[in-house]
Amino acid sequence: MPLSMYAASVPRFVHMLNNLTALLDKAQAHVDARKIDPAALTAFRLFADMFPLSRQVQIACDVAKGAAARLGGIEVPRHEDTEQTIPELKARIAKTVAFIATVPRAAVEASADRDTTLKLGKQEYTFTGMQYLLNYAQPNFYFHATTVYNMLRHNGVELGKKDFIGAF
Amino acid sequence: MPLSMYAASVPRFVHMLNNLTALLDKAQAHVDARKIDPAALTAFRLFADMFPLSRQVQIACDVAKGAAARLGGIEVPRHEDTEQTIPELKARIAKTVAFIATVPRAAVEASADRDTTLKLGKQEYTFTGMQYLLNYAQPNFYFHATTVYNMLRHNGVELGKKDFIGAF
Repeated sequence: MPLSMYAASVPRFVHMLNNLTALLDKAQAHVDARKIDPAALTAFRLFADMFPLSRQVQIACDVAKGAAARLGGIEVPRHEDTEQTIPELKARIAKTVAFIATVPRAAVEASADRDTTLKLGKQEYTFTGMQYLLNYAQPNFYFHATTVYNMLRHNGVELGKKDFIGAF
Repeated sequence: MPLSMYAASVPRFVHMLNNLTALLDKAQAHVDARKIDPAALTAFRLFADMFPLSRQVQIACDVAKGAAARLGGIEVPRHEDTEQTIPELKARIAKTVAFIATVPRAAVEASADRDTTLKLGKQEYTFTGMQYLLNYAQPNFYFHATTVYNMLRHNGVELGKKDFIGAF
């Protein structure tokens, strides 16, 4: 059995995005219990020129959405980056998961050697589906998801790595 | 063309581990230029009960080493966790990369539906090779590699995401 393009993308993104929702639920419980302004977490940056937590969530969602759409051969829907609060960020994740679930599995499975083009700023990059998934989408997705975890941990939210990884 | 188990594992781990070395080179340059004790970085923790940077590097190496060996059907070599300094951590990465490069490609390619067992503490988990790579090895590897990046960024080392991702 070869490795499945679908198994390596859509269900993994859905799983990790759902874990991200669970992290945000723990963040909400943390600020509620301590009467902390939730913006202390959602606007938190690990360093002054890094994106705040809210933007990290948005980018994780966008990487997953873009990868699922491009590998599925369908247009990437545009989700505006308007979310500020924890409930809004959870809704953004839910919207992303709902979209990803609609992506046709057969098209994703057949995408490993289909070219896909990605525009980053003014640069265009052309990848095979496999390169795009392995070299771009997976590391970027895990990067932003992990950064959300680290930001919450750094602020004392009680989490462990198993909250991030979830069930195997 | 299906997705390749080998392409999704060994060369990706090697690529990211080499990026990690480049991050550590920038960390070394940072402490040298400012006459900072390097242990301020290598022993740094994002939160008191999280592992320090040195251990994050060791775990990233161990996840890559374990995945390459298990998928390649060979015994996982033991690397003692003795590294404290930046040069020692770079040597640990180099040792990991050197080992990973010896893993037989054909065995890894054939591993998607071969069972592999992982012992975590007292628990044993049995996965297919595909589940092990996608659900365990990839998220854990990226988690620890990203955490190293976030720790260095939080301490002011001048890095950008492209240092983490590297060339596509």
